[in-house]
Amino acid sequence: MSRDGLLLGIDAGGTSTRAVLATPDGTCVGYGRAGAGNPTSQGVELAAANVLEAVDAALAAAGATAVDVALVAAAAAGHDARFGVDWLTPGLSARGFAGRVVFESDLLAAYFSGTSSAHGYGVVCGTGASVIRVRDGMLDRTCDGVGWLLGDRGSGFWIGQAIARACVEELDGSGPATALTPPVLAHLLPAADAAPAPPRAGRHPELERLIRAVYAQPPTALAALAPLAFAAAAEGDAVAGEILRRAGEEVVRTFAAVDDGPGPVVCGGSILVAPGPARDAFRAGLAARGVGYAPIAVDDGATGAVVLALRHAGVAVDEERRERIAATLRALREAPAA
Amino acid sequence: MSRDGLLLGIDAGGTSTRAVLATPDGTCVGYGRAGAGNPTSQGVELAAANVLEAVDAALAAAGATAVDVALVAAAAAGHDARFGVDWLTPGLSARGFAGRVVFESDLLAAYFSGTSSAHGYGVVCGTGASVIRVRDGMLDRTCDGVGWLLGDRGSGFWIGQAIARACVEELDGSGPATALTPPVLAHLLPAADAAPAPPRAGRHPELERLIRAVYAQPPTALAALAPLAFAAAAEGDAVAGEILRRAGEEVVRTFAAVDDGPGPVVCGGSILVAPGPARDAFRAGLAARGVGYAPIAVDDGATGAVVLALRHAGVAVDEERRERIAATLRALREAPAA
Repeated sequence: MSRDGLLLGIDAGGTSTRAVLATPDGTCVGYGRAGAGNPTSQGVELAAANVLEAVDAALAAAGATAVDVALVAAAAAGHDARFGVDWLTPGLSARGFAGRVVFESDLLAAYFSGTSSAHGYGVVCGTGASVIRVRDGMLDRTCDGVGWLLGDRGSGFWIGQAIARACVEELDGSGPATALTPPVLAHLLPAADAAPAPPRAGRHPELERLIRAVYAQPPTALAALAPLAFAAAAEGDAVAGEILRRAGEEVVRTFAAVDDGPGPVVCGGSILVAPGPARDAFRAGLAARGVGYAPIAVDDGATGAVVLALRHAGVAVDEERRERIAATLRALREAPAA
Repeated sequence: MSRDGLLLGIDAGGTSTRAVLATPDGTCVGYGRAGAGNPTSQGVELAAANVLEAVDAALAAAGATAVDVALVAAAAAGHDARFGVDWLTPGLSARGFAGRVVFESDLLAAYFSGTSSAHGYGVVCGTGASVIRVRDGMLDRTCDGVGWLLGDRGSGFWIGQAIARACVEELDGSGPATALTPPVLAHLLPAADAAPAPPRAGRHPELERLIRAVYAQPPTALAALAPLAFAAAAEGDAVAGEILRRAGEEVVRTFAAVDDGPGPVVCGGSILVAPGPARDAFRAGLAARGVGYAPIAVDDGATGAVVLALRHAGVAVDEERRERIAATLRALREAPAA
């Protein structure tokens, strides 16, 4: 097989980066993975270094070099094909790459991981939360995804903060008892700090310790509490169930802001994919809006980054070709490391 | 008049500190003011330096020295008569003070600024929000006051964050239009940054700029937006009115957690004192709970710190004596600086 005219899709996330080399017919021939590649959160230099590490691994796995690559589609947070900030081309050029680099939104890559439809909706609800509308294969509208302080309604952070507040309100006497309180305290208070504190200012000592622990960590660390809500809701805790139900409804409200007619709904991130009241409320809300089928769950944007690379190379991607990308990529990922 | 047996009340806040020297009959004879004196937020050394500056000014105004002072009551955030952290006595001793120092909660000082009743409720709703129950002249229960990330429901921060979110939701298409948006943008986006940005990822350029501006400042800076809600609500904006109404209701919910029967309600901080939907909702909520009179508004805890000093010195403080403290303190504060 000629190595000429290969296409490279990159899904550069805030936790890890995936690079996938594919032929124009949608057969994935090389896969590489590296650390965080988001230029906004990691900074341009570290992001580029990690992305290039994933690229090198994908090239090596395929027995190819950057000279063989015709086009690179790089998906990262906040990027868009119409917005050019070139933090990646110098490193690719240094490897002999002479083709075109196209930047795309990571949300669009997640969308195309689940469907080949040029019209539809992408929902990502993990640490953050956002909904996009896709028209003519391009990101047409974004709603939410504005971060923990201004939005990300229904996200892991949103749930984690709600859980921490529910625990505070129980200890404070302003909210109902909840099975969340013991696991939240166990998560936030290291065992070494278990000595009982004297009551202060008419306040529960556990609450004083919880307050100190929460403000000693970055605010976004509250997102790590979200799994406790799923566990408590599964055990029948009403407070946890209500928080998760409201999370699902919040994302439906975000969806409603971009909804302008039928289309597939692709769903990334764990919150609306894991079984529980959030997923149930999200699905019920979509059904009430006339979306008659279940959202399509995706793991990440790796498949979609390849779809975007093919599309930008002028290759039509129908559902059969997208499924070929997904299946051949899955085979590469599941292969034992060389 | 003998200078012997003077009592010193200190109201050490996160913005400024007030020291008041009084005779046991409740006549204030010296007043001093200095910078922030909260040992938790300022650190013990800076807090002590500022408190001692206010003390020196009060002593100088009265023509007295620390030797003349029999007892000091120092009120600061998180303090309580039953919780001894002595960050102040060394500085006072160095000035010749040989009496007793008692630490109290700033919330209790604010309470006694408005009433002499040994039973009642203190509500502080400014940048933060908390409600205390006072029994036998002591802080018996605290609710909320747990900070911006975990609570402070109905506070200036809470309102400011809600306003910023309302503005985001209008720009995002997920919320209604509101008169808040232009003043919020004007507040957060410096005029120098007014060049229109290209649309990115299907998002309003003003929204991109607002997001960058908000995350570039400390989260608590959102509290500075709260006055915009009062202005917009006064002009009839429904979104602002609803945010303020909910703020008032949130504080009623906090109040309900400590309410165990009749008592005066003393209210500090501007949110529930300034005319508008927050105050209206708070008063309506209290009335619904059977509190049949308007909350007593106080400016700060200076009067109450003197009340606490007298009480700890064994002087009974009835309403006549508290009013004497308040009136003679007002006269000192309004006197032209020497």
